[in-house]
Amino acid sequence: MQRLDHFNYRPDSYSTFPQRYIINFKHWGGAKSNAPIFAYFGAEEPLPDDMHVGLLEDNAPKFNALVVYIEHRYYGKSTPFGSFEESMKNATTRGYFNSAQAIADHADVLLHIKKTLSTQHSPIIVFGGSYGGMLASWFRLKYPHIALGALASSAPILYFDGIAPRHGYYYIVTKDFKETSESCYNTIRKSWYVIDRVAKKLNGLSILSKRFKTCKKLSKTYNLKDYLNSMYSDIAQYNDPIKNTLKVVCDAIDGAANKTDVLGQIFEGVVAYDLKNQSCYEMEGNTEPTETSIGWAWQKCSEIVHPMGINKEDSLFQPEPFNMTKFVNDCHKQYGVLPQPHWVTTYYGGPDLKLNLKRFASNIIFSNGLKDPYSSGGVLKSISNSIIAVTTKNGSHCLDLGFEKPSDPHWLNTQRNTEMKIIKRWIDKYHADLRRSTK
Amino acid sequence: MQRLDHFNYRPDSYSTFPQRYIINFKHWGGAKSNAPIFAYFGAEEPLPDDMHVGLLEDNAPKFNALVVYIEHRYYGKSTPFGSFEESMKNATTRGYFNSAQAIADHADVLLHIKKTLSTQHSPIIVFGGSYGGMLASWFRLKYPHIALGALASSAPILYFDGIAPRHGYYYIVTKDFKETSESCYNTIRKSWYVIDRVAKKLNGLSILSKRFKTCKKLSKTYNLKDYLNSMYSDIAQYNDPIKNTLKVVCDAIDGAANKTDVLGQIFEGVVAYDLKNQSCYEMEGNTEPTETSIGWAWQKCSEIVHPMGINKEDSLFQPEPFNMTKFVNDCHKQYGVLPQPHWVTTYYGGPDLKLNLKRFASNIIFSNGLKDPYSSGGVLKSISNSIIAVTTKNGSHCLDLGFEKPSDPHWLNTQRNTEMKIIKRWIDKYHADLRRSTK
Repeated sequence: MQRLDHFNYRPDSYSTFPQRYIINFKHWGGAKSNAPIFAYFGAEEPLPDDMHVGLLEDNAPKFNALVVYIEHRYYGKSTPFGSFEESMKNATTRGYFNSAQAIADHADVLLHIKKTLSTQHSPIIVFGGSYGGMLASWFRLKYPHIALGALASSAPILYFDGIAPRHGYYYIVTKDFKETSESCYNTIRKSWYVIDRVAKKLNGLSILSKRFKTCKKLSKTYNLKDYLNSMYSDIAQYNDPIKNTLKVVCDAIDGAANKTDVLGQIFEGVVAYDLKNQSCYEMEGNTEPTETSIGWAWQKCSEIVHPMGINKEDSLFQPEPFNMTKFVNDCHKQYGVLPQPHWVTTYYGGPDLKLNLKRFASNIIFSNGLKDPYSSGGVLKSISNSIIAVTTKNGSHCLDLGFEKPSDPHWLNTQRNTEMKIIKRWIDKYHADLRRSTK
Repeated sequence: MQRLDHFNYRPDSYSTFPQRYIINFKHWGGAKSNAPIFAYFGAEEPLPDDMHVGLLEDNAPKFNALVVYIEHRYYGKSTPFGSFEESMKNATTRGYFNSAQAIADHADVLLHIKKTLSTQHSPIIVFGGSYGGMLASWFRLKYPHIALGALASSAPILYFDGIAPRHGYYYIVTKDFKETSESCYNTIRKSWYVIDRVAKKLNGLSILSKRFKTCKKLSKTYNLKDYLNSMYSDIAQYNDPIKNTLKVVCDAIDGAANKTDVLGQIFEGVVAYDLKNQSCYEMEGNTEPTETSIGWAWQKCSEIVHPMGINKEDSLFQPEPFNMTKFVNDCHKQYGVLPQPHWVTTYYGGPDLKLNLKRFASNIIFSNGLKDPYSSGGVLKSISNSIIAVTTKNGSHCLDLGFEKPSDPHWLNTQRNTEMKIIKRWIDKYHADLRRSTK
């Protein structure tokens, strides 16, 4: 059972709720072995019952490691007020939903597991991807007495309060498309203005709905653009190096150049990306909202304020600078409380974060694929011999966390091996210190 | 204006209250000098309007330092709900009164000062004594991106959750008296049983009241014993090396040996300690409670759980082992919520705190006088070349923080010089790094 509020002593802060964690004992060396604990921090999503993260499970046997998956409060079965809906019901119930409380939960869970399993001297390495990666790195900063080290995969910890440029995310998406195909990039760039021109016609939305086979007639041009924007971003963010959807979609767009117009080319891209082989495309945002979409929307509007905009330059997208005033007002309207864009940098560090990490931090791996738009907020260069950046030129979001596959490119194997070698060095040093101190 | 709750996004957490800080600009080198900021964290007490701490002000000129004093929430003028009484009114208003919120306040205040004075690159050194010293060291652990280093004077950071032995405090009091005078120590030891014997007589409390010149007739033997217990503890804790009250009181007790009985001797000790030259002694606890006594009682019963007991052995006092169950029940009865004795070690580290500090921490000076009973919970040996213990054999509680005086013993000057030399090293390194990074 987890405490509702770790930093407050009001009677209601003492309420408890069940927090889910899943332990894989399969490879564990047992209490007396001092074998490590690999702890994976869930991000903005429920943990599936059969939770497995490749990097941890592939490497657990070599380390005789215990593998633990910890669910983030409010998601899945770790909801403080009954159901997810009840927990998200109003401004009061949502108030306890933030990263500082979440990592305090994780501290409690990890100490509880160590105590229960009588494995006081097992070093703990924490892992996470994306938001979960931020949590892992922040956990090492705030609870270094509990975690010996952290692997933060694709964690945009610099994407706060103006540390990294606001347009970084879309800049990388642009770069990915441009590098894949200059003509594909140019077609997409042009398409927004074609869409705008068609939309202005008397029956413009009907034409667009027909051309893009939307399931329902478009009510706003914005919805089509938003759909395409998300699609391009997802393609760049999650590009699999073998399937290379980025190339598949660009090939489709480029390949249709002689057969159709710009809208037709773009639609060919949509079809090529369509993994579900749909008969029509849901562009009216009527898809069922998920815990992730609902929960993350709140997190972004309260604590995890990532200012993401599109600036002029040569973007794949139409310019749309991030407007903090509008953002703050919109969040306030929706949730009744104001976002706190400066809090993450106050609590976890910034704006001289890199210099500061060099001065005081240790044992964090920041891994990034440079094709991942979120790498624009990542730590891409090693800061010291224990704050280490491991990057891959062609990698996308959180690729290193997956299971090893025979088809994996060489550079991905190298990335994973490098990471686990560093972690082994931390653990070996820990065990050596431990032997010295208990002699 | 300070935020009521930094770790929660309920609408009521957004309430603000005025937090007091006092800035001394007298010695400051100005915004462009990158001169350091010496920030003193108030402990469990209001800051006086003419706040001055010797160690900071004596050394500010050499460093051209800005000196800042920050008041702890709930004390003095930094009360979240109007008056101190209103703020302490009930379990809900008291809930925001804890160290994690306090150091988050300090983080906000320090960033605010840096921004307002446009002195982004001034290194900050935080100072504090006793509980304030714990806060200073914890601040360096939790906000190393804000404080370059910390001086924690007489901070019993190991006095939690069984890290240091529970009887440590009274063990040192005992040792101080024994080393001052074996016969004084023996007289005091004996006196408790004499008091008990007299108390058992029909008019025992009247006799004791008369012999100890109490202002009101004693209602319980306990009140007399508690008065004496506190007196001996205070004598040991705050012993001034020049006045040497410890010796003055023991001399009085020993000197009366031929003239009177044990009770008479003890009373001579009370008279010798009496700084106010009182005509009677207030032993019925009728003295006006202070913000410190009220506030600290709550803090001890919620977060800052210091298990202090007296074990058998050869204590100056009658044995009274610390009883956690009783403690928890008493606190619950008084405040309506349970103490959280494990939280400090979860959040700030323990029980392998020293080993962990070696592994990950830096730039903390733990200073202790070994005659201070609280040194039993202090870090008394250097842990690394940047987690440094500075101790004095004859020092008492927070002695190093005071103003230099011509009468100061040599070892006290040495202690202060050592501390400031270490701090200078941190600041010089910081400035060198800064020059390199901005080149």
